[in-house]
Amino acid sequence: MDELLNQLRQTWHRTIPVSEFMQIAPLSFTDGELSVSAPLAPNINLHHTMFAGSIYTLMTLTGWGMVWLQQQLLNVDGDIVLADAHIRYLAPIRNQPIARVVWQDASLAGLSAGRKAKVRLVVKLYCEDQLCAEFSGLYISLPNIAK
Amino acid sequence: MDELLNQLRQTWHRTIPVSEFMQIAPLSFTDGELSVSAPLAPNINLHHTMFAGSIYTLMTLTGWGMVWLQQQLLNVDGDIVLADAHIRYLAPIRNQPIARVVWQDASLAGLSAGRKAKVRLVVKLYCEDQLCAEFSGLYISLPNIAK
Repeated sequence: MDELLNQLRQTWHRTIPVSEFMQIAPLSFTDGELSVSAPLAPNINLHHTMFAGSIYTLMTLTGWGMVWLQQQLLNVDGDIVLADAHIRYLAPIRNQPIARVVWQDASLAGLSAGRKAKVRLVVKLYCEDQLCAEFSGLYISLPNIAK
Repeated sequence: MDELLNQLRQTWHRTIPVSEFMQIAPLSFTDGELSVSAPLAPNINLHHTMFAGSIYTLMTLTGWGMVWLQQQLLNVDGDIVLADAHIRYLAPIRNQPIARVVWQDASLAGLSAGRKAKVRLVVKLYCEDQLCAEFSGLYISLPNIAK
């Protein structure tokens, strides 16, 4: 599983420059829950707390990472895109944030038959065990016919 | 007005490292409309289109910039934070994006009397005149008693 998380981090950093700048990195994937973090330093704002845009990006990629991991586990392929998202900021973040997402019981099996898959994921962001932000995103995975 | 937009860009780049990495820059502020852009190169994703997190950050800062500009014009001071936001991605972005926001008729006057101000702003993102993303954010400006 460490190898899969390593692959996920490399995929992000190699193809999304902002994710590398933010130093976004998966922490763990156990019992169907993925945890992802980023250090505060490259992600601060002018109030010296975590920048709203960085918070959103960390949570977006956490959800994306979960769909990517599920596809790897099922050995199906799909281009994962975000259709819409909603975020609520609950408290300023002054410590290292940890974003967590639990897999919903969505089916990705149609991808191998050429059908797109949709899944809405809720991502929660904790700072020192306090819930600091809540995110809900609708991810769509498109069958990649070309591959 | 150019001087004010220059100040806005410097405020972003000096205090929010991600905004500098993304090369976010105000384009114009005329007739109550602020336009902000960023080049595609630092903001791409693995599909070679604009990264969802970058799109959100560009739109978030565009709304934030509008509140900041209004405060400058009224000569009132306030710490502007984002309380919640919703975004819809309508089309992949393959050209330079331009985010636009029009000021709503919200009052910031209470700030100088120590009261917080709230304003919901809708930001639209265009790529080659096509509407590619829609964002709605609730901004809160908190009176800065210390200053």
